Amino acid sequence: MKVQGEPTRSIWVETDGWTVGIIDQTRLPHAFVKVKLSTAQEAADAIRGMVVRGAPLIGATAAYGVCLAMREDASDAGLEHALSLLRETRPTAVNLHWALEGMRRVLTPLKPSERLAEAYRHAAALCDEDVACNRAIGGHALKLFQDAWDRKGRKGRLNVLTHCNAGWLATVDWGTALSPMYLAHDAGMPLHVWVDETRPRNQGALLTAWELGQHGVPHTVIADNVGGHLMQHGQVDLCIVGTDRTTAHGDVANKIGTYLKALAAKDNGVPFYVALPSPTVDWTIHDGVRQIPIEQREGTELSDVTGRLPSGEVATVRITPQGSLAANYAFDVTPARLVTALITERGVCAASEEGLLSLFPERRPAK
Amino acid sequence: MKVQGEPTRSIWVETDGWTVGIIDQTRLPHAFVKVKLSTAQEAADAIRGMVVRGAPLIGATAAYGVCLAMREDASDAGLEHALSLLRETRPTAVNLHWALEGMRRVLTPLKPSERLAEAYRHAAALCDEDVACNRAIGGHALKLFQDAWDRKGRKGRLNVLTHCNAGWLATVDWGTALSPMYLAHDAGMPLHVWVDETRPRNQGALLTAWELGQHGVPHTVIADNVGGHLMQHGQVDLCIVGTDRTTAHGDVANKIGTYLKALAAKDNGVPFYVALPSPTVDWTIHDGVRQIPIEQREGTELSDVTGRLPSGEVATVRITPQGSLAANYAFDVTPARLVTALITERGVCAASEEGLLSLFPERRPAK
Repeated sequence: MKVQGEPTRSIWVETDGWTVGIIDQTRLPHAFVKVKLSTAQEAADAIRGMVVRGAPLIGATAAYGVCLAMREDASDAGLEHALSLLRETRPTAVNLHWALEGMRRVLTPLKPSERLAEAYRHAAALCDEDVACNRAIGGHALKLFQDAWDRKGRKGRLNVLTHCNAGWLATVDWGTALSPMYLAHDAGMPLHVWVDETRPRNQGALLTAWELGQHGVPHTVIADNVGGHLMQHGQVDLCIVGTDRTTAHGDVANKIGTYLKALAAKDNGVPFYVALPSPTVDWTIHDGVRQIPIEQREGTELSDVTGRLPSGEVATVRITPQGSLAANYAFDVTPARLVTALITERGVCAASEEGLLSLFPERRPAK
Repeated sequence: MKVQGEPTRSIWVETDGWTVGIIDQTRLPHAFVKVKLSTAQEAADAIRGMVVRGAPLIGATAAYGVCLAMREDASDAGLEHALSLLRETRPTAVNLHWALEGMRRVLTPLKPSERLAEAYRHAAALCDEDVACNRAIGGHALKLFQDAWDRKGRKGRLNVLTHCNAGWLATVDWGTALSPMYLAHDAGMPLHVWVDETRPRNQGALLTAWELGQHGVPHTVIADNVGGHLMQHGQVDLCIVGTDRTTAHGDVANKIGTYLKALAAKDNGVPFYVALPSPTVDWTIHDGVRQIPIEQREGTELSDVTGRLPSGEVATVRITPQGSLAANYAFDVTPARLVTALITERGVCAASEEGLLSLFPERRPAK
């Protein structure tokens, strides 16, 4: 999507033909800074440090991390080392594993001398596939937006609530949950987005608000605590979020706090949609609450908040008292029973095993 | 309760016999600063600016605000002016109205010359009554804590989750939801408190964490998004919160986000208790979601965060992008169906009209 009027992806190969460009998302919205990755270690550090984040973009960055590793050491040992280094960066996102397994599958049969070029070809294809996938998700979700808009008698504005950032910054382009917002806004629908701040890292307040603002989509940032109240008062027509991992039965692991919004949506009869590229589905697991490992991150992400001082300088302040501990769980799991529908690149389905298999019949276990 | 080892109330008459001392709660936990109020206008400003906050303390401050007004002008017009000035400071808290109506009832029949002394007597009595009330609430809630601890087989620690600050800082002393925590901890129960940060004003991270830390109660600050995940994984044995207004049918208006935690508690079979002094009950209304006005405050409370720089200096940073709007609803309403029980100074009851009337039979409408 556009940044200051310029079409921009979240990851690209630089004009030198090999270094990998990314946006330092830890500095948004206060500064728009591009970073060049030259080694697999730098790619791993960028993922772990959340310089890049969002399940699809993590996968793409990991794929390019393997490319960079192949420049240094394209042996079997070098490949295994790179896969292992990159796999250990984030425990929850299934796309990371999917992307790395794709690289392994393509590269392992090749001679070391052939691996470098093929790695870049495969990583580029993976990125293009992500863009096409997200555009397709946006098209399917747009129909749901139009239905909601029709149900509302096309009066006032369509109020959509989202949590965290499932926008183009979290993918290669378009985003998942935000893809239909760009399409709806461009189609002239009077859309308004409630943007959950998304503590502790504030990805909503920082990234989603910035993305929507750059594109001109009307939006209001709210505390994560507010969505339930808005739903009780008819101020939310639908919710749409992304996901970091979806089980074969439709349970959804997404940014911490998603579960609470899904409960409120259920309690108030508000549709709760999850937008997901199919690589986000982990077909091997069923019970999300019991089976998906939830990453715990540093408590300082909660206790310390970064923003702009009145001088314009960016600074970090500590909000908690000295001596108070802080715990930081990065994701939670929303059970399928709370999800109105899943929106994939192949269409919309129920959040259930049957629903997913109706769109992805090739995943049906052989009898 | 104690501050740096010294027993302290949240409001007091200074040794000059007339100025009113309060703690500037906007500066906690970074600085412990006492403020002297000398006029009704200063009292009103302190309430509106949340220098004091918490329903019972707002009531007490308003009562002392009337005392200060009586020094300036004890005429009928002066009394009405003061009541009106103070009533308009915060729209949601019913204690404010209750305290002001109490002052009106006591002072109106008196000659202007008798009003000043009686105002101070009545305000002091109101404070003492609040302290006794909160201590009684703590005793009743402590039994519920002990039951939960017994159900757990007295193993590990009792994990209690609370939202916002319903501690002694929100009342005159002891607090409501935090009162049993002090009693349980002092009784040797291995208590651990999950403290919701409570965006946008961070009263949990700033005030509850500070109170508990000063008293030595083990606690961990979490983002408001986290409670549902903890409940899904058996990490919360019970929830207890305060309330700013409770309807005659047991609906509970409390800090924004309380409703979401109550939904998660219900979904996971975790008891959800609300601690309330009976002045918090608004016997005139029934349907909380429809009838309780919800205050909207400045969006800057969300977009701007205050804390300590590494230098120790206190600074405010803006987290949202330029041009993004922020909305700030201060409270939400938790329907009675999600509340396990109400804990009042007279004991524990169901969150229902019958439950409340069983403890407060004098409120039963005459047939």
